[in-house]
Amino acid sequence: ESRLPGFATHQVGVAGAVVDKSNGKVLVVQDRNKTKNAWKFPGGLSDPGENIGATAVREVLEETGVHSEFRSLLSIRQQHNHPGAFGMSDMYLICRLSPLSYHIDFCPQECLRCEWLPLEELAQTTDTTPITSRVARLLLYGLKHGFNHIDLTMEEMPAVYSGMFYQLYHRPLPKKKA
Amino acid sequence: ESRLPGFATHQVGVAGAVVDKSNGKVLVVQDRNKTKNAWKFPGGLSDPGENIGATAVREVLEETGVHSEFRSLLSIRQQHNHPGAFGMSDMYLICRLSPLSYHIDFCPQECLRCEWLPLEELAQTTDTTPITSRVARLLLYGLKHGFNHIDLTMEEMPAVYSGMFYQLYHRPLPKKKA
Repeated sequence: ESRLPGFATHQVGVAGAVVDKSNGKVLVVQDRNKTKNAWKFPGGLSDPGENIGATAVREVLEETGVHSEFRSLLSIRQQHNHPGAFGMSDMYLICRLSPLSYHIDFCPQECLRCEWLPLEELAQTTDTTPITSRVARLLLYGLKHGFNHIDLTMEEMPAVYSGMFYQLYHRPLPKKKA
Repeated sequence: ESRLPGFATHQVGVAGAVVDKSNGKVLVVQDRNKTKNAWKFPGGLSDPGENIGATAVREVLEETGVHSEFRSLLSIRQQHNHPGAFGMSDMYLICRLSPLSYHIDFCPQECLRCEWLPLEELAQTTDTTPITSRVARLLLYGLKHGFNHIDLTMEEMPAVYSGMFYQLYHRPLPKKKA
């Protein structure tokens, strides 16, 4: 994994899909200052040095007032010349979170609306973005057949040289010998 | 998906695991200038504006002389304060590739050795890195039970505002209605 020194080329954004398994609802927001009112998952840019899951949990709390915990990574988008990234590239990751609280107290500076919406409805509405719609269908499949079908699980591992830790995401391997 | 403008915090590196399904072998290299001779997948940093899969294919060709094509994304590592990244964070992605040629003509400036190694052997040897070993076990599982169990597939989608395209990676959804 060692390489010649490089430079930062990507900003990293993370969204959190908080799924309430008990009723099949997911937490969605509509941004302020948008021409189209599209439902999307709360999220935002990672702070320097912040882990993916921590960004998702923090952004969900800041935007919606809902406490949650990280479960898995679901999807990754890479986009170049992103309009908001000044010619840099953009890596956007969507995580699955579990709710630790349910009361919505959304940030009126950022959000116009915030609701627990049935996944069935989010998967079918046109009032959403293509990625949100896709992830809603993925989550719906997970809800019906088990989230193990859609999850990338995270494991923290020690780095070989630095003694620091990194986070590795991939499909869960069966516990038994492959 | 729109957010306040940010700045680039991550360098992005990509490795390619070229798997020959006909014999269960995978293409691995040992870096020059290392104290420990560990087998790893060829890879390196993305050029600005370069897609993940394109980086993997290019780096594999440059290091080993083997032509390949992108199949899927397998694993993502996030690491902060990476020694080679000057305090920036590092996103390291491992892709599955299929070989289009088999003859090895490796770059002696970068590699000490380059071989098609049986996945069984790579999954068991201690002469490798923890991530390579983990991904070898993942690939071995895929080889035995179907790569659909371990793959994140890629789809190119049009961006809503810019008219450009982005790449979205997630678990394949069944073709039929979920």
